Amino acid sequence: MAESWSFLDASEPNFRPLVVIELAKGTKEETIKWFTKRIVDKKANGGAQLLVKSLVTESGDEKIYLVGASHLRLLLGAETVGLVKECNDNSMRTFTYSSRKTFKDFADDNHNFLTMAECQYIVKHELENLRAKDEKMIPGYPQAKLYPGKSIVRRLLTSGILVQIFPLHDREELKKLRQSWYGRVKVGYQPLDEIRCYFGETIALYFGFLEYFTFALIPMAVIGIPYYVFAWEDYDKYVMFATFNLLWSTVILEVWKRICAIMTYRWGTLLMKRQFEEPRSGFHGVLGINPVTGREEPVYSSIKRQIRIYLVSLPFVCLCLYFSLYVMMIYFDLEQWALDYHEENESNFSNLMLFVPSIIYAVVIEIMNRIYRYAAEFLTSWENHRLESSYQNHLILKVLVFNFLNCFASLFYIAFVLFDMKLLRQILNQFVESLLPYWLQKRHKKRMKKRTCSLKTDTDLSLVEQVNLEKEMGTYFGTFDDYLELFLQFGYVSLFSCVYPLAAVFAVLNNITEIYSDALKMCRVYKRPFAEPTANIGVWQLAFETMSVISVVTNCILIGMSPQVNALFPDSKMDLVLTVALVEHLLLAIKFIMAFVIPDKPRDIQIKLARLEFESLEALKQQ
Amino acid sequence: MAESWSFLDASEPNFRPLVVIELAKGTKEETIKWFTKRIVDKKANGGAQLLVKSLVTESGDEKIYLVGASHLRLLLGAETVGLVKECNDNSMRTFTYSSRKTFKDFADDNHNFLTMAECQYIVKHELENLRAKDEKMIPGYPQAKLYPGKSIVRRLLTSGILVQIFPLHDREELKKLRQSWYGRVKVGYQPLDEIRCYFGETIALYFGFLEYFTFALIPMAVIGIPYYVFAWEDYDKYVMFATFNLLWSTVILEVWKRICAIMTYRWGTLLMKRQFEEPRSGFHGVLGINPVTGREEPVYSSIKRQIRIYLVSLPFVCLCLYFSLYVMMIYFDLEQWALDYHEENESNFSNLMLFVPSIIYAVVIEIMNRIYRYAAEFLTSWENHRLESSYQNHLILKVLVFNFLNCFASLFYIAFVLFDMKLLRQILNQFVESLLPYWLQKRHKKRMKKRTCSLKTDTDLSLVEQVNLEKEMGTYFGTFDDYLELFLQFGYVSLFSCVYPLAAVFAVLNNITEIYSDALKMCRVYKRPFAEPTANIGVWQLAFETMSVISVVTNCILIGMSPQVNALFPDSKMDLVLTVALVEHLLLAIKFIMAFVIPDKPRDIQIKLARLEFESLEALKQQ
Repeated sequence: MAESWSFLDASEPNFRPLVVIELAKGTKEETIKWFTKRIVDKKANGGAQLLVKSLVTESGDEKIYLVGASHLRLLLGAETVGLVKECNDNSMRTFTYSSRKTFKDFADDNHNFLTMAECQYIVKHELENLRAKDEKMIPGYPQAKLYPGKSIVRRLLTSGILVQIFPLHDREELKKLRQSWYGRVKVGYQPLDEIRCYFGETIALYFGFLEYFTFALIPMAVIGIPYYVFAWEDYDKYVMFATFNLLWSTVILEVWKRICAIMTYRWGTLLMKRQFEEPRSGFHGVLGINPVTGREEPVYSSIKRQIRIYLVSLPFVCLCLYFSLYVMMIYFDLEQWALDYHEENESNFSNLMLFVPSIIYAVVIEIMNRIYRYAAEFLTSWENHRLESSYQNHLILKVLVFNFLNCFASLFYIAFVLFDMKLLRQILNQFVESLLPYWLQKRHKKRMKKRTCSLKTDTDLSLVEQVNLEKEMGTYFGTFDDYLELFLQFGYVSLFSCVYPLAAVFAVLNNITEIYSDALKMCRVYKRPFAEPTANIGVWQLAFETMSVISVVTNCILIGMSPQVNALFPDSKMDLVLTVALVEHLLLAIKFIMAFVIPDKPRDIQIKLARLEFESLEALKQQ
Repeated sequence: MAESWSFLDASEPNFRPLVVIELAKGTKEETIKWFTKRIVDKKANGGAQLLVKSLVTESGDEKIYLVGASHLRLLLGAETVGLVKECNDNSMRTFTYSSRKTFKDFADDNHNFLTMAECQYIVKHELENLRAKDEKMIPGYPQAKLYPGKSIVRRLLTSGILVQIFPLHDREELKKLRQSWYGRVKVGYQPLDEIRCYFGETIALYFGFLEYFTFALIPMAVIGIPYYVFAWEDYDKYVMFATFNLLWSTVILEVWKRICAIMTYRWGTLLMKRQFEEPRSGFHGVLGINPVTGREEPVYSSIKRQIRIYLVSLPFVCLCLYFSLYVMMIYFDLEQWALDYHEENESNFSNLMLFVPSIIYAVVIEIMNRIYRYAAEFLTSWENHRLESSYQNHLILKVLVFNFLNCFASLFYIAFVLFDMKLLRQILNQFVESLLPYWLQKRHKKRMKKRTCSLKTDTDLSLVEQVNLEKEMGTYFGTFDDYLELFLQFGYVSLFSCVYPLAAVFAVLNNITEIYSDALKMCRVYKRPFAEPTANIGVWQLAFETMSVISVVTNCILIGMSPQVNALFPDSKMDLVLTVALVEHLLLAIKFIMAFVIPDKPRDIQIKLARLEFESLEALKQQ
């Protein structure tokens, strides 16, 4: 590889901008000079060996730089990050520069061998891996300390010198993608491969899951409609519907794993070796030696972190959950009080008062949600996780539990404490039916707002105009909120499915609009996000599976409480409860057995993976 | 490596026999010549490049051969099988001949660098990988067909020409091992590392688990004793004991995974790359191309196998389970009839008749068990699994379910249908107390039997005498029955722990004798088994975890049925049942959360594994 790096000396004639770097206004010349030198410097000198051009804007006081790289540099970078690409024999292999000829579509002059998203990911990786050598601080900023091995970009970001780094949109590609994604009126599958090429695997997987989930809900919706239309109230029919639902939800979650494996195998991320993860930018600690890499980096005791998690965060979350329940009880008291007041006085005012508790409660919940989200982010950051992934998991868990309680606690209360099925159905109906138009409207408004923006963006723009436009766009903070919305929706569909079978119908309708509005959001509203290679939907798989286990319990109880079932056990309530408990345990057992028996990867993917492992073992023996 | 193989040409002066091959009496000379030639032939000619010596016995008509290998050959073999050894810097690495100098205790003249068990494993691996080239059949036996790539040893075994292959005992080492294992009277930990060196990882892990499990039961036993001594019958105490038991069983199973990881890391098997598994000897099918290796081998459609499993084996197992339950019901009817008869007649004969049903039932169960075991082996073999591991898993599952039902169905019936806690306690007591002396006696008898044998073996024997003695010893068929016994014992301890807290005490006492008797069995009764590298106890972990989940359910029901608890809910049985169900779900949730939160590997092992992965990634980049 040492030889290959020397080829890079000849500077590329046609510079293609990939990533935009925005420095703070008034950044010292000394700093800029040092930073750009580090970016273009040779690998051997500790540089990133990329290309940089300053963007001359009209006002002139903005410090914006475009980063690009030569074709050869990108190929070597693809090897460094461990990209997996398809070979001529249709197998997927880790790309290496020396074996480049064996890869499909590879040609020395084919600059589309790597997608633009991959190129941007490589540039981002190289920039983030620019490490301080013997600098003690960032030149010109004595307060921004450096130590050997510290990521320069991270320090620049935390000290506010670097405002943002983002990848540029590709107008041509984006236009094509929009056309095939949501430009056509005809209903069809989303172009997931194209989405993946443009936005990377994480976002493509989200849209893949959204689409899959929508299709998976259709059978539930179809079976649910007649229950609503004919107002079926028979015992057998409810039990059948609920049983179908419970087993179906297990099947769809297991099948998703298989579909996910098929997609990510094709995309190469299933095989991609997890790179060693650098500490996240917020991580702090005393300087020490990382036991894995042997490099100098901040070290923070895992025991201290455990103490913070279990002695501070956990009690805090529990307190918040308790408080949220307490607020809910007050709401129910208020509701009761308003009802009594209305019955006593029966005036227009008292009629109006009936709505007051709900409004107050909705407002309080929204405020609590925001405060909690803020607190959760603060606490998780204070827990000082070394890895971004572990930070994300802890944050997701905290927010998930709280949102789950806020959304479903009142429904649980109505169902299992007040035993008021009518009210439950009414509320679910209200909730879902009122949300649908709200959602639709929200999307519509967004679309309107963007239309004005898009009119501007569709015309041919100069590079300067494009960069200026894009740097003002909002930042997409990842798929967290999108998955959360889907998760809560899954809760509404499955937790009370035997009381309100129509939920699935509304979920399907909502998701169809969701696909289009989310697509719009990605293409028009936000800055292009960096591609993030990933092989699965991570902690969300677990969250959905947990929800489906909880829904077995709730549905069994609901069926047990229905008057039709009660009528079957006229003499002994005991027998009823025991029967319900037995059925519940059986269903849970079947669920676990099904999850165990259905393989997570389809057979042909298993064989392909085994083949690769076999080949690498054989290669080792041949050496 | 090509150069190293050529060193082997010089034959080793001091031949050390490792493995014994016994051919059938009257095997044709032509065959023997061909087979031994293949064993000693160079690697380049498709041989195994091992050393063979014929053993001249007194009678002379027995065809016994000793196989050994030169030191260099074994080192190269260690690289082939992917052994992981400790380096000079205390890290564990895959052994390669070229990097041999970096390994701890390596010296060109140190013949103890590889343990004898490892050497024997290597020889076995090399023998099993002797593959047919262009032979169409085994010379001299036209009916024993061969095809390119077929394992010669497997064909020799299936056609009955090869009677057995087994590794030789090492008298010196065995003496030392016996001394430190069970020779001393003093109580202490077992010498697991020495057991592993002598018998390999699978057996060492079994003894490790047995020891760990015994220690883990001690707290349960200690807490259980006062319940028995003072005949405590309080509600709170029972609940406390059961809750402790249920959480404790989760903790011990999770902690075992960590301990297992620590041990197998030290032994190198945690890091050992799984070699590509060859088809098991019983596997048959039409000749085709294996999609993983591209080699010619029998191929059998996975769909056909699935059909056999789900349409034949599964219904058969269900039928057997049903039949077993049916027999149990007949037994209870007979018991009742005998009781009625005794009450009517009250004679000596009628008194005797009281025992008849139990005896008949015990005999029938034993017969059914044997027939079922035979049927399960036949069915699993008929399912035609390609891999030995998959065959084992399916067999274990079948036998496990049937044994579970046979052992516990009658207890479940007494507890949850007859509601007779007194009878349950009585039977458990009887069972455990009567089994203990039976077990003790069994061990004692074995020990006596062996003493005679050992007297003979302790004296200095010639190699011929030793081989003749060992080839007549029984074959150890793996750890299956040992684990099964432990599994059922765990069931007796945990399923009804709140009714019969003393079970743990007896289990501890039994396991202590079990350790000694099993050790004796391994060292004296059976042929030395081939070492089998393994990183965990496999499917048994799952089996124990499932048992611990089931025991949450049974214990909650038992507590709910106790008169003390019933007295707490005098008015409403409904409240009682609901409370019990709630507690049960809470306990199950806590169990799952605990299993999720406790990491499967201790932090330092995680770091060591991450370090190795990081190094291999870095090495890849340097290339």
